[in-house]
Amino acid sequence: MISTKLTVAGLQSAGSPANPEANLAELDQAAKRLAGQADLLITPELFVTGYDVGDRLPELVSAHHLDAVRAIAEQNKIAIIVGMAESVAAGELYNNAVFVDERGVVRGRHHKTHLFGEIDRAYFTPGSHAVTMVPYRGVNIAMMICYDVEFPENARMSALAGAHLLAVPTAQMTPFEFVADVVIRTRAWENQIYLAYINHDGVENATTYVGRSSIVGPDGGVLDRIESGTGTIIAEIDTDVVRSAQRANPYLTDTRPELNSALTAGGGCVTWSNNG
Amino acid sequence: MISTKLTVAGLQSAGSPANPEANLAELDQAAKRLAGQADLLITPELFVTGYDVGDRLPELVSAHHLDAVRAIAEQNKIAIIVGMAESVAAGELYNNAVFVDERGVVRGRHHKTHLFGEIDRAYFTPGSHAVTMVPYRGVNIAMMICYDVEFPENARMSALAGAHLLAVPTAQMTPFEFVADVVIRTRAWENQIYLAYINHDGVENATTYVGRSSIVGPDGGVLDRIESGTGTIIAEIDTDVVRSAQRANPYLTDTRPELNSALTAGGGCVTWSNNG
Repeated sequence: MISTKLTVAGLQSAGSPANPEANLAELDQAAKRLAGQADLLITPELFVTGYDVGDRLPELVSAHHLDAVRAIAEQNKIAIIVGMAESVAAGELYNNAVFVDERGVVRGRHHKTHLFGEIDRAYFTPGSHAVTMVPYRGVNIAMMICYDVEFPENARMSALAGAHLLAVPTAQMTPFEFVADVVIRTRAWENQIYLAYINHDGVENATTYVGRSSIVGPDGGVLDRIESGTGTIIAEIDTDVVRSAQRANPYLTDTRPELNSALTAGGGCVTWSNNG
Repeated sequence: MISTKLTVAGLQSAGSPANPEANLAELDQAAKRLAGQADLLITPELFVTGYDVGDRLPELVSAHHLDAVRAIAEQNKIAIIVGMAESVAAGELYNNAVFVDERGVVRGRHHKTHLFGEIDRAYFTPGSHAVTMVPYRGVNIAMMICYDVEFPENARMSALAGAHLLAVPTAQMTPFEFVADVVIRTRAWENQIYLAYINHDGVENATTYVGRSSIVGPDGGVLDRIESGTGTIIAEIDTDVVRSAQRANPYLTDTRPELNSALTAGGGCVTWSNNG
């Protein structure tokens, strides 16, 4: 098979809470800086509006924001996975990751399936598909949002479906540094795929973000990382590396789905030893 | 509910390859040292014979070894999870973790379900139950062996079944330090349970073990650990800590089994009763 490479960048930023125009301008500047260097730019979760912006969230949502992202992608010839709220069905607001290609065409959107805490539950309808995959220039890119990737089930299903890269806009806050530092590396290792985890930094209302965005390789090694502040990280995705890593550590073929029925709604059985 | 506490120890050791008598003597010494201090002692995988002992493995297996372990447990009033090969069905050899209580009674055994590499596949029949749970003095103890716990599916199923502690005899070798250092902490965190990962140290034939045994808490924090050499680690298991951790980080209730069908083979569920 042909080796396919893709250069992926992430924008970590405090953003401008409740100011979509300022955030879209920041995205445009990042896209201009990265044009010609990166093929794909990933933002944090709900980057367009900010995450903890209180009751103003629904009124900040506008279909025009996606048009602006599409224009930024097309003008800078860079694909973008943007975290934004969207009303894509009547009366339902979703916490989305939207994949826009370098021509400005929407190639897919992931509805956050695992809502976290009061903010998510107050505003959003949960998605009903754990895995959303966009094949892009030979690389299979699965998208998840924040809490989604903390569940190993989700990352595993994306890898079983053939993902090379798991792209995760997030709004990870204190005291969950452990997720950014340890869990993310495990998710990459246990599936032998790349993972890009792109977070906010700074403070919004009651929420203090932990920064610590990273791009991790299939061996769990950190390829690029930013601890705090605003900045971009960048790394190369190589499908050959995924292929050879998955051959060397064959978790995806050694897993035994016939033993996993306890993980589904059909229920399952476990063995208890009760004597004595 | 009543808080239940249990003190758990692990014996990391190079052991005496292919010398069951010497290994059982070492186990006896460890049990004597820990008597009155620990409630449960866990050994590495295949501790009785050694793991990489070549073609002599089958001839080293004897039912008398379990009798010796039972006597050690009873004499020192300490429960033991011992890693050993057993022929519990005609013509089938299993890589087992056997739970012997402080009266010397076998309370359960886990057959390694995920065979790793040439050694496992050359000698052992894979187990057919991902989760084996022993309720012991108010603590639900799930057993897995080495490669089993590298699959998040298995640890998740044990936690969904109510495990407080996941006890894992292992024979983890170079270059898999990442598993001992990072993956184990994630398994505890993502299920909010305790995990005891007890390894060999030193060299057997072509295998160099990585040591790094640890007992990890439900927050992913390391409670005790030994980097290399022979020694025991010890920590207290508290079911109240598990309960409050699982309330604070509700992965087990926020997981969405209705989205997880890709993790199963649609296989049926076999009820298995293991009376030792």
